[in-house]
Amino acid sequence: MKLSRIKRAIISVSNKDNLNLLLPILKKFNVEIISSGGTYKSIKEMNFACVEVSKYTNFPEILNGRVKTLHPKIHAGILNIRKNKNHKNNLKRLKISNIDLVIVNFYPFENIIKEKHNFQNLIENIDIGGSTLARAAAKNFNDVTVISDPKDYKQLINEINLNKGATSLNFRKAMSAKTFRYSAYYDSLISNWMSNNLKIDFPERKTIYGKLITDLRYGENPHQKGSLYSIDDNLNFKQLHGKKLSYNNYNDIYSALSLLKSLKKNQGTVIVKHANPCGVSEEKNQLKSFRESLECDPTSAFGGVIAFNSVISKKLALDLSKKFFEIILADGFTNESIKILKKKKNVRLIDSKKFIASPEKSYTFLGNLFLSQEIDSIKLDEKKFVFVTKKKPTKKQIKSLILAFKICKFVKSNAIVLVNNSSTIGIGAGQPSRLDSCKIATEKALNFIPEKIIGSVAASDAFFPFSDGIEELTRNGVKAIIQPGGSINDKEIIKAANKKNVAMIFSNTRHFRH
Amino acid sequence: MKLSRIKRAIISVSNKDNLNLLLPILKKFNVEIISSGGTYKSIKEMNFACVEVSKYTNFPEILNGRVKTLHPKIHAGILNIRKNKNHKNNLKRLKISNIDLVIVNFYPFENIIKEKHNFQNLIENIDIGGSTLARAAAKNFNDVTVISDPKDYKQLINEINLNKGATSLNFRKAMSAKTFRYSAYYDSLISNWMSNNLKIDFPERKTIYGKLITDLRYGENPHQKGSLYSIDDNLNFKQLHGKKLSYNNYNDIYSALSLLKSLKKNQGTVIVKHANPCGVSEEKNQLKSFRESLECDPTSAFGGVIAFNSVISKKLALDLSKKFFEIILADGFTNESIKILKKKKNVRLIDSKKFIASPEKSYTFLGNLFLSQEIDSIKLDEKKFVFVTKKKPTKKQIKSLILAFKICKFVKSNAIVLVNNSSTIGIGAGQPSRLDSCKIATEKALNFIPEKIIGSVAASDAFFPFSDGIEELTRNGVKAIIQPGGSINDKEIIKAANKKNVAMIFSNTRHFRH
Repeated sequence: MKLSRIKRAIISVSNKDNLNLLLPILKKFNVEIISSGGTYKSIKEMNFACVEVSKYTNFPEILNGRVKTLHPKIHAGILNIRKNKNHKNNLKRLKISNIDLVIVNFYPFENIIKEKHNFQNLIENIDIGGSTLARAAAKNFNDVTVISDPKDYKQLINEINLNKGATSLNFRKAMSAKTFRYSAYYDSLISNWMSNNLKIDFPERKTIYGKLITDLRYGENPHQKGSLYSIDDNLNFKQLHGKKLSYNNYNDIYSALSLLKSLKKNQGTVIVKHANPCGVSEEKNQLKSFRESLECDPTSAFGGVIAFNSVISKKLALDLSKKFFEIILADGFTNESIKILKKKKNVRLIDSKKFIASPEKSYTFLGNLFLSQEIDSIKLDEKKFVFVTKKKPTKKQIKSLILAFKICKFVKSNAIVLVNNSSTIGIGAGQPSRLDSCKIATEKALNFIPEKIIGSVAASDAFFPFSDGIEELTRNGVKAIIQPGGSINDKEIIKAANKKNVAMIFSNTRHFRH
Repeated sequence: MKLSRIKRAIISVSNKDNLNLLLPILKKFNVEIISSGGTYKSIKEMNFACVEVSKYTNFPEILNGRVKTLHPKIHAGILNIRKNKNHKNNLKRLKISNIDLVIVNFYPFENIIKEKHNFQNLIENIDIGGSTLARAAAKNFNDVTVISDPKDYKQLINEINLNKGATSLNFRKAMSAKTFRYSAYYDSLISNWMSNNLKIDFPERKTIYGKLITDLRYGENPHQKGSLYSIDDNLNFKQLHGKKLSYNNYNDIYSALSLLKSLKKNQGTVIVKHANPCGVSEEKNQLKSFRESLECDPTSAFGGVIAFNSVISKKLALDLSKKFFEIILADGFTNESIKILKKKKNVRLIDSKKFIASPEKSYTFLGNLFLSQEIDSIKLDEKKFVFVTKKKPTKKQIKSLILAFKICKFVKSNAIVLVNNSSTIGIGAGQPSRLDSCKIATEKALNFIPEKIIGSVAASDAFFPFSDGIEELTRNGVKAIIQPGGSINDKEIIKAANKKNVAMIFSNTRHFRH
């Protein structure tokens, strides 16, 4: 616990919070303060002594503040190794004094980006002097204390009081690491914004940044610690009721909402379990939408996540309260509905109206590697549809096929989605063999709503490699199929569909999702 | 295309590559060069004119080089807005000249980290002056050119030649964005290393960094662009033969290798399709290990990824060459085996001996959010096993149960893994209902190797919520089961196992994976 005494501090903060708490302590321990601009003014207004940077360096503040602290008298004062004789002699010869405490803010660049300033204005907000002060002090944590977050003033005050005007090495080290995190975060914001602006999608160096939103009870399993971060400092939804969300909850919520947002407004219901949808409906009538999404797989839906892109009515709340869902998401809740639902044990209610589906990129982590890709945001282009069978789908079937194909984009591959009218009746997910996904989907339908499989339609996220999948589907009553096409066996597969007199569309778009 | 003329440059590079190409061009256009230390020496040795920084600023280089360029004469020269009259007057009054070109390297901190220097040595390698020069020039790209990668000298030379001593705004902007990317990457390296050193697992600001390894033909689907990045600048495996790997290949390879590395050395075979294992074996005999992994689900294995943690022998190569795998990974290939396998069409051969399973953290991206967690690295603790049934498992069964449970960690939830002796005979993956995963696993076994389901064992990644899963497994001949336990229906579930006279272990460890 090497103590480092503070005789001189430089303070340069855009956020003046809690300065009033800090200054009396610095005064108490006779710390000389150097500052400039707005910070200097604030300190003087609070009636504390302060030397202006320009007086301290004997060099004027120039370029409207662009160059203030970038001076060797400041930086040698920070960067010198106190126990190094050579450094000591350098300082003595040039009459430079030690600066032992640096208090700087990293400018909240994310706010500036959100405020959609013009390019030039954003550039003006890139801090050079402040960043350099912070990094220099962080480098020399062995001798110097750096504070880059006003929330840490309290800790600093405790340290100074405890150590009678000094700080401990552990504290300086922790503050140094934090400062480098802030610096990395700050330059990540700048570089990502600039690269996006220049439409550089996959730069040679990529930094992905996030702000801690919350620590979680644990990760995917109880023996793994976990936390939640946000890239845009925003959860994009609001929990109204219930206990804290878990790691797996967040994963399921995201699966549900990203699919939900692709459905027609005020018509969509999505039920998710283990990050896969197990019931989806796009029906005008809210109650019908709920009931049909549920009847697709009521067993899996038990304890799942359910999401509506409508405001939950009293009637729906009454229906919902007869079932067990861990999480209910909606574009809002009527006062009556929220009262009804709050009575349920262990339910969480979330307003997800403001949820935005996705940024432009997604990342998949594979140990020390990561894959970066554009998100799968392609709009289905009906003009690309090729009607490959003798039998052509009816308009009503096309509508259902499009819905089924839209849904299969959000089902883990291999994905088969059966739809009757506007709701799923069977979903086959996550199988290494497409035939198995076909079987799971048809078995679900046969098990829960056998009457609806006759005349239903099916979507496949990728091409059928063999005709066995087609046979499995049509044998059970599927009348129209949509799939990308592109297999070397396409001819045989079309033949199988023709033999059963069902309609098939090649969408020419694949929707793998792993 | 606002041109910016270069009259004066500051050069400070640890990497001296290609300086000999650049200097003649700068001389040709009468660019004055400022430099210091090693760079100054190199330039002089190449017989080019150069002013030392200390002479230029009239301030000595101090603190063994820690403070050289942190001087207003340098930074005002860089940061002033050329068209701003106030700035112009400032410079005139203080006799400061413009610096129009800044050439700096970001020190390759990742190498320093890899070399495992001590903490103090690492700190000494954190660049303050160079980083500040680069960031100042990058901020002022409107007037100043910044180069932070020697690979860009050629572009710079072209620019200067084309524009007769000047650079275009587009070029300066691109180089500025790149510099901020390098700066963000550099500080991410430093901050992550420091935070790890202080055992800060989930800091308030997180930056994840990567170096571009390769652009990919496309992402998960052909309409999505994609690229591969590495956190440690290393692929950790080596492709020996075959065409370029795809996005989905990398995903499957990682799934295969992370499971493979948990199996006994020289005994493991893993086959993966759509990121899920569809056949796993841990057999001493390499050929047997291969055959048994394949017979678990030969349909799914077709065109899949197969990985061995042994060196592929000639005999195995001959067996392998009768089947179609997209990718074959191994701890090496004998000369004969590689000759045999290269004859196959469209196969990729990869040496994955040096693959390291995982860093300490994993990240899951959910749109603008990301989840960070410790990886699921828990070692199965047999001492935690609770033998809950009347029937106790035999030693042989325990061995198989442990293998099955180890495998289910790598299967997407809900996961059910059936093992006979040392190989899987059925894997049920990715289902929202546990019963469905049981059914998939038993159906696989009944379909491909019905003789082996009698007397097999089963692992479940999480507890059984009801006894129906137990009934499905035992009905088909499973004799021992391992699962975490912890359901409110545990009593009923134990009863169901007792009724069938099978052994069941509660592992008290869950292995969800989504």
